[in-house]
Amino acid sequence: MVGKVSPKLMEKIVYKNLGVVDPDVLVGPAIGEDAAIIDLKSGGALIVHNDAITGASKFLGWLAVHIVANDVAVRGVKPRWFLMSLFLPEKDSEKLLEEIMVQINKAANELGIMVIGGHTETTPGLDRPIVGTTAIGISEKSRIVTTSGAQAGDYVIMTKNAAIEGTAILCTDFADILRSKGVGEDILECGSDFLMKVSVVKEALALADKGLVTAMHDPTEGGILGGIAELAYASRKTIEFWADKVPIAEETRLVTEALGVDVLKLISSGSLIASVPPSNLNEAINTVQSFGVEATVIGRVKEYADCLVEVIKGSSTTVLNDVYVTDELFYLWKKIKSTC
Amino acid sequence: MVGKVSPKLMEKIVYKNLGVVDPDVLVGPAIGEDAAIIDLKSGGALIVHNDAITGASKFLGWLAVHIVANDVAVRGVKPRWFLMSLFLPEKDSEKLLEEIMVQINKAANELGIMVIGGHTETTPGLDRPIVGTTAIGISEKSRIVTTSGAQAGDYVIMTKNAAIEGTAILCTDFADILRSKGVGEDILECGSDFLMKVSVVKEALALADKGLVTAMHDPTEGGILGGIAELAYASRKTIEFWADKVPIAEETRLVTEALGVDVLKLISSGSLIASVPPSNLNEAINTVQSFGVEATVIGRVKEYADCLVEVIKGSSTTVLNDVYVTDELFYLWKKIKSTC
Repeated sequence: MVGKVSPKLMEKIVYKNLGVVDPDVLVGPAIGEDAAIIDLKSGGALIVHNDAITGASKFLGWLAVHIVANDVAVRGVKPRWFLMSLFLPEKDSEKLLEEIMVQINKAANELGIMVIGGHTETTPGLDRPIVGTTAIGISEKSRIVTTSGAQAGDYVIMTKNAAIEGTAILCTDFADILRSKGVGEDILECGSDFLMKVSVVKEALALADKGLVTAMHDPTEGGILGGIAELAYASRKTIEFWADKVPIAEETRLVTEALGVDVLKLISSGSLIASVPPSNLNEAINTVQSFGVEATVIGRVKEYADCLVEVIKGSSTTVLNDVYVTDELFYLWKKIKSTC
Repeated sequence: MVGKVSPKLMEKIVYKNLGVVDPDVLVGPAIGEDAAIIDLKSGGALIVHNDAITGASKFLGWLAVHIVANDVAVRGVKPRWFLMSLFLPEKDSEKLLEEIMVQINKAANELGIMVIGGHTETTPGLDRPIVGTTAIGISEKSRIVTTSGAQAGDYVIMTKNAAIEGTAILCTDFADILRSKGVGEDILECGSDFLMKVSVVKEALALADKGLVTAMHDPTEGGILGGIAELAYASRKTIEFWADKVPIAEETRLVTEALGVDVLKLISSGSLIASVPPSNLNEAINTVQSFGVEATVIGRVKEYADCLVEVIKGSSTTVLNDVYVTDELFYLWKKIKSTC
């Protein structure tokens, strides 16, 4: 296996070995929940999330901050403090350290975050830098948004376009294959830069500030469809997912078609998914748009009807029962490995 | 360079790139300070520390929890919540995941910690597991102990023996060289198991509970001498260090002599260093001993006298001005590399 450990293994091995049960931990590790929530007793709560970046990226330091900050922000809480374990390869370690720290500083300043600690070392045997990250925020308990709050009747909105992160990964890691299939350099370059759209912090905080949403979620592996399934699972509801409504950038359409990839199941950091009561819908969309970000209605929450997602595409409806949607990247890597 | 980034590079590159200056961060990244302290305004404070383990170890999961927990505990605060970024090699990843999680669970239960989040993945290109960790605790501000509180007149105590972690590393990573120098298997085995003594949580929390210490510190790279220098530096004092008083286990003496290593400069997780007012000294020593752990007076704090440490060994006194003591492991690895 390569990449994130499957939910099956998480349940079989990880969730059984979490040490003591702490009653002050309101939300711990759970499928679909983006960050831990700890009751501080004083009326406040701590939001904590851990993430990592292991793929080669020229934006590693900048991404490291934004990716983990997203998960705190979708809890409706400003990410304020950042820690990292940074593992550098022996080759060019000082140069890499400087590049990465300058990027971390840039992203932290963009988000108003302070780096409060970390471990930085040159690690024998690495061929690229790897970073593990923690982001922390603090909030009144009452304003925290979870993935589990979606109510029947709510609309489901998503911001930006599908597969933002996935498009960047395809245009970077699969560039040669895409070239061989006739995809032009301008598309590859533009698609690679989709990573710059990865932050959802501003729109997530604004929606929470105004109390417009019942649940938010940061879709990653499994794409928009995976994110919708996780929202439904955490909220114990069924979501009618209007697949044809999902906005897809032209670059994304070109590269996913060239590789035969389902754009709805491709890793999607950069989009925010939220459930919105009908009376808040217009204000929610306007709020997101005030940041120059598009928001699109892509479905509706229903009472649980024996499945997580009803995927409506054209005139056909398919049903999804499994919360775990395998990301298309998994199949792509497997295919490439088998042809090597 | 291999291993932790030097303080010089930290100052040149890392400390300059920490994002915004957050006034609620009472202690951020700083030489000698073991953990960050964040003002929660409600009278409480958050203690957060990040660490990592990258060397091959059969105890990786267990160590990952204890090592990072130590740094929160030397702030006088119980470590309660743990997050990790766990990077597994492709070979045997499921088996390794299970071994590591069982160890994490064991250590977390020993310390009363809950694992609240993490990122677990199989990372291409790794030949061994690597883990980045975060530990968090919460406390009344008034009971927090820092590295900077040592007062002139205080005694300096250390617990257990010098170079506990270093002894285990030498007996594991340098076993073949030690064998060639006549060190027996029983010593190597016993020395490897010194890692089991790595926790200082119980004694650190008990000393803080009773308000017996003015400063505490977890000596790691640079050994006991490095730890003493960091305590002096953070407290802006001079410490008279009675080197002959430092207790050394027989296994440690044998392996450090065989390799020509200065035991006082060898990585020393497992010991706690604390400054204690004279009136508290007996109670502090008794408190530590009540856990079956030895405590030894190894020096005294003076007003700053133009150096950090006066090392008194036999009838000679040498003076240390530099807070950064290079760990003996660094020279050992360098020597081995040059003879390869």
